[in-house]
Amino acid sequence: MAAIGDRWGLLILRDLVLGLRRYEDLRRSSGITNATLSDRLKHLEANGLLERQRYQFSPERFEYTLTPKGRQIAPALMLLAQIGDSWNDSNGNESPLKFVNRKSGADVGWTLVDLSTGKKLRPQDVEVQAGRGADDLMRWRLSQADRARKNLSDTHSR
Amino acid sequence: MAAIGDRWGLLILRDLVLGLRRYEDLRRSSGITNATLSDRLKHLEANGLLERQRYQFSPERFEYTLTPKGRQIAPALMLLAQIGDSWNDSNGNESPLKFVNRKSGADVGWTLVDLSTGKKLRPQDVEVQAGRGADDLMRWRLSQADRARKNLSDTHSR
Repeated sequence: MAAIGDRWGLLILRDLVLGLRRYEDLRRSSGITNATLSDRLKHLEANGLLERQRYQFSPERFEYTLTPKGRQIAPALMLLAQIGDSWNDSNGNESPLKFVNRKSGADVGWTLVDLSTGKKLRPQDVEVQAGRGADDLMRWRLSQADRARKNLSDTHSR
Repeated sequence: MAAIGDRWGLLILRDLVLGLRRYEDLRRSSGITNATLSDRLKHLEANGLLERQRYQFSPERFEYTLTPKGRQIAPALMLLAQIGDSWNDSNGNESPLKFVNRKSGADVGWTLVDLSTGKKLRPQDVEVQAGRGADDLMRWRLSQADRARKNLSDTHSR
């Protein structure tokens, strides 16, 4: 999250994932002011998510493209778009984007799978646990959440 | 994105997904100031992502839980956590959280699949197209991106 910065950072990443490259295109697409756009582009570059390359001298012009690290964000944006679509569906709106198999044209989507069996899972089949890199605060969060689940019924009768 | 608001909104959603419910727990977990936390909770409630329920009178105390709409965000947070982990891995850091199959304890993960065949795809197998709900600006973005890809080589020789 810190690397992305804020929703402007996320908007810029979305446009780069779509394939926009030029400053003017990014500005028109996002509607972000010049000051904010320049600042967020620098932030994303400093965090290793994008790189800029000069494509013109006098005046100097740059193109922006995702680094391999930045490209890793694309799947999450796709999933966020899917979620946004499911919210919009219930309002009768249709999807602004669709994601298809480049070869067959079939719709593609994200599925949760058990990595040992390859079988599809539902979100409620998944449990969150502390990982090896969990710090004290993360362990505390998980224990509080666990307690909240267990005490839910007697909390309301207190 | 507008419904989530900003990274504080996303942090709050993460804590609710983990299972925290109480104002004081959300405050301690996120480190957000009281003014900002109250504001973002109201924003998320107004956007239908969370609901609050009183669990104590004098003084009044509330619990916050995700609505069905809010719970839909959980998969994307999991995927964002996976991406963050893959960034951290290259710095030698370990994951703060792990996601496992509740029944078997096996690791779970997100996979991109062709929805007609159920086969696994790589991100580069996927093409983005304008959906039925695309507006003029979205069509323009996709055509600019398409043009940028096609003109990439002669752009640099101009």
